[in-house]
Amino acid sequence: MSSFIQSLNLAWQNTNSLLCVGLDPEPAKFPGAFANRSDAIFDFCRKIVDATAPYACAFKPQIAYFAAHRAEDQLEQLIAHIHLKHPELPVILDAKRGDIGSTAEQYAREAFDRYRADAVTVNPYMGFDSLEPYLAHKDKGVIVLCRTSNPGGSDLQFLDAGGRPLYQTVARLAAEKWNTTGQLGLVVGATFPKEIEVVRGLVGDMPLLIPGIGAQGGDVEATVHAGRSAAGTGMLINSSRAIIYAGNGDDYADAAASAARKTRDAINAYR
Amino acid sequence: MSSFIQSLNLAWQNTNSLLCVGLDPEPAKFPGAFANRSDAIFDFCRKIVDATAPYACAFKPQIAYFAAHRAEDQLEQLIAHIHLKHPELPVILDAKRGDIGSTAEQYAREAFDRYRADAVTVNPYMGFDSLEPYLAHKDKGVIVLCRTSNPGGSDLQFLDAGGRPLYQTVARLAAEKWNTTGQLGLVVGATFPKEIEVVRGLVGDMPLLIPGIGAQGGDVEATVHAGRSAAGTGMLINSSRAIIYAGNGDDYADAAASAARKTRDAINAYR
Repeated sequence: MSSFIQSLNLAWQNTNSLLCVGLDPEPAKFPGAFANRSDAIFDFCRKIVDATAPYACAFKPQIAYFAAHRAEDQLEQLIAHIHLKHPELPVILDAKRGDIGSTAEQYAREAFDRYRADAVTVNPYMGFDSLEPYLAHKDKGVIVLCRTSNPGGSDLQFLDAGGRPLYQTVARLAAEKWNTTGQLGLVVGATFPKEIEVVRGLVGDMPLLIPGIGAQGGDVEATVHAGRSAAGTGMLINSSRAIIYAGNGDDYADAAASAARKTRDAINAYR
Repeated sequence: MSSFIQSLNLAWQNTNSLLCVGLDPEPAKFPGAFANRSDAIFDFCRKIVDATAPYACAFKPQIAYFAAHRAEDQLEQLIAHIHLKHPELPVILDAKRGDIGSTAEQYAREAFDRYRADAVTVNPYMGFDSLEPYLAHKDKGVIVLCRTSNPGGSDLQFLDAGGRPLYQTVARLAAEKWNTTGQLGLVVGATFPKEIEVVRGLVGDMPLLIPGIGAQGGDVEATVHAGRSAAGTGMLINSSRAIIYAGNGDDYADAAASAARKTRDAINAYR
């Protein structure tokens, strides 16, 4: 078991939360006080992090929102801040990388050495050798896309691949062949609770990162019933926009905290 | 037809080359004169670009090699340099992005607004709505992973998906459903010439980005015979390491030019 998975198990126990707060900063949605500030992305997210930390088991910054604004330095600062102020909460870098081994080594350096993320999301389309370089970082987690929450997710993932939908084959490969080091998790969208249940049945206690509640409309009760592990945990249920943009005034961080608390409680009501 | 595809057709005609030079900078492999220079990545690549431009139809920087070294600014500089000095040669940003629509919008901004790439590589696992935000940039190209050159490429891509291997389904989706705006290309690895031939048969004249010759061992003759379009073009045959690390002394740029010229000529011998 990697130290990421151990940290995650500890966080589930100690925080009594399965909520992962997604950090998708869009400066156009920030309160007016952030306008024209060069550290706006970091500072907006830092306040969200500090306000929502009591209700979360993890944070998930989405790298595209930083890269589109030349804000890689602010992403580094943000993750360093989380590690310093909330060391019990793992950070998952949502990057969905996928490339040949020599390039994947560079992406692993980016995620783990540069950004100091505890885990990274990756894409399985290029197969196992595209995942191995991440697994060489033994204390880190690697969370593989399986069944995604977007409408086009079915285009490939629901194709019949050898008698079962492709996403189920990915879940089986992950559980039965690829997880030799105990570092893997899977992404399974909350928009498909029945499919979460199938995946849970295939992968034992493997952690599931579940986006799609909140702005994407997934059902909390159905998600929790479908995805919980034998211990009643096993899930990182992610909400991004519904929390970080819960308010748009000067009290946005309080509004985010309130939304995070309500989401945590809604999840816990069904565990 | 997007202006990327038009530029590419012009480049194929005017350069008499199907060679795409891949830029995968690894500072540990640079000649000693670059040691401890803060602009080493830009300057190493700039000299490769200027030396190999006479033999190339395009350049393909791989973003992971820049991101692992906090060198996003040098990637911006490098692409700006190519546009300024070699405006006839399109730049493909090799990023293999793939995410839900709202996030893909951010990645499209990164590739096209920030880096000013002419095309970007993307991953099809999340389906069509994960590609659409790139297609909203009408003058740009979007090159979808189909059959990749790495050993693990078969793990998913060769699964039987509805009576044919998954990569063929991706090729058909790309050609028959997703390419409504004429902006798409496909990545098909040179390590599988028979599969290039199958893909060419499915997609008409769609451009194919073909990595895997050079360091990865693909066969040039078989690749050209399998992948050429009716016009004898249609391919961006990529070589990265075999060109940019052809020499490791002060004459590395000359060595790269020589390797690029030989590779172009080897390709042209079989057109």
